[in-house]
Amino acid sequence: MRPVLVLLACEMAGGDSKTAIKPALGIELFHNFTLLHDDIMDQAPLRRGQPTVYKRDGINTAILSGDVMMVKAYQLIGAVPSAILPSVLEAFNRLAIEVCEGQQLDLEYEQESEVTIEAYLEMISLKTAALLAGSMEIGALLAGRSLSVAKQYHQIGWDLGLAFQLQDDLLDTYGEPSKFGKQVGGDIIQNKKTFLLLKTLELANTKQRTELDHWQSIQDDPGKKVDSIKAIYDQLNIRQLTEQERDLHFNRAMEGLEGMRAMEQPKNVMVNLCRKLLNRDR
Amino acid sequence: MRPVLVLLACEMAGGDSKTAIKPALGIELFHNFTLLHDDIMDQAPLRRGQPTVYKRDGINTAILSGDVMMVKAYQLIGAVPSAILPSVLEAFNRLAIEVCEGQQLDLEYEQESEVTIEAYLEMISLKTAALLAGSMEIGALLAGRSLSVAKQYHQIGWDLGLAFQLQDDLLDTYGEPSKFGKQVGGDIIQNKKTFLLLKTLELANTKQRTELDHWQSIQDDPGKKVDSIKAIYDQLNIRQLTEQERDLHFNRAMEGLEGMRAMEQPKNVMVNLCRKLLNRDR
Repeated sequence: MRPVLVLLACEMAGGDSKTAIKPALGIELFHNFTLLHDDIMDQAPLRRGQPTVYKRDGINTAILSGDVMMVKAYQLIGAVPSAILPSVLEAFNRLAIEVCEGQQLDLEYEQESEVTIEAYLEMISLKTAALLAGSMEIGALLAGRSLSVAKQYHQIGWDLGLAFQLQDDLLDTYGEPSKFGKQVGGDIIQNKKTFLLLKTLELANTKQRTELDHWQSIQDDPGKKVDSIKAIYDQLNIRQLTEQERDLHFNRAMEGLEGMRAMEQPKNVMVNLCRKLLNRDR
Repeated sequence: MRPVLVLLACEMAGGDSKTAIKPALGIELFHNFTLLHDDIMDQAPLRRGQPTVYKRDGINTAILSGDVMMVKAYQLIGAVPSAILPSVLEAFNRLAIEVCEGQQLDLEYEQESEVTIEAYLEMISLKTAALLAGSMEIGALLAGRSLSVAKQYHQIGWDLGLAFQLQDDLLDTYGEPSKFGKQVGGDIIQNKKTFLLLKTLELANTKQRTELDHWQSIQDDPGKKVDSIKAIYDQLNIRQLTEQERDLHFNRAMEGLEGMRAMEQPKNVMVNLCRKLLNRDR
């Protein structure tokens, strides 16, 4: 999806998407580099249903392959006309640092007992939204647009990224088991600090909090754990509150798109793509 | 030493070294990023007499800090006039990939029983010489010189890098204990595949090979191990052969420098610096 955003943003901004193919690949390669290193840090055994590089080939290969992937990403990002290279490189460097900062916060928050909603939104902004924002921004820069126009594209990508991440949080708990690629309720089973859980911690009364703490300590009956914690979510309208937060960002992105002077055809493709992604059930 | 090479090469090539400060820092930061990740891969407890980041703060912090250092290195490299940015970035990407390839070969060769001298020289070329070569090349590019002039600087840096690495191999075995920062003989104790050991494996007769294999299997008497293996080195003139190989590259670099049209004053500083580094005894 990230490379598609680069190409569409470039077309929306009046550019030729052919010139955006290499930087779009660079963004995608960078994203995959972060997955390679994240999988080491998270000790993740599986990625897209396959063993992770870290599991299959060991830590050293995963570190070094990731490092080379990052350099190759810069090679692809560097393959743009020299007049726009400084601004594209600067945007890419900024998003790369933000993504690393987001991963650092994610690792820190895993160790903390209490994380505020605000801190969580900052973390997913950096870890997820920054890359979508940078994809949109770089697309506009590739079309030769000014830094201030590129900033508008950046803001739309940022809101989209937040909406998509909140949708991910929702699907993990409320997705259709037959369509969702992973185990529904996986986040609940792992006590993962999602928007849903953090909102619950914010709103729960003493009784609900005690109950939640009890179920979070349970490891041996995942089905019961998921159902019981979902029941607490339901008492507190967590699903609706998360959808509200998601829609806040999504609508802001849509308004930004609609109010923007851009090529009609790619703009319509972008709007439809975003709507489709948000209503996706897997 | 790498940033000094960037600055001196820039001055030699007629540029203003002030314009080279940020990219020189970028090269140094990149080098330190590779050390951070290498220390994880080598499970190294110490670096410059201090605990490594990997030991002190854990693998995750070492991976992620290294990743951000690489991006920051690109930020510094990117801080050059836009007219030369494409060529500087390309040179930097190339050296970065070479350094990663060198580390990959180093890890592979550690697992292999037989490594040829040729393969060893290729590995240290990539792991060590590429960075010095790139430093010289980028210095010349920063002075606004053509790609073909920059290539000459690159070649000089490459030969210097090989000479310095071979000097490192020599010092580890023949250095003055009072001046050498590490334990003299450390490479021998760890059975590290250096030019000295590989040349010995190439030249040893059956009796010497049997003796070498015996001492390499010994862990409990390091002093005796070092003395005995050094005795085999002496029988085969390993020190002199290594010095010959070192001098081959060093003299080639000096000839390259001398034959080059460049600013006299920084060229003299460069020649003196290289001579001093090669005769260094720690």
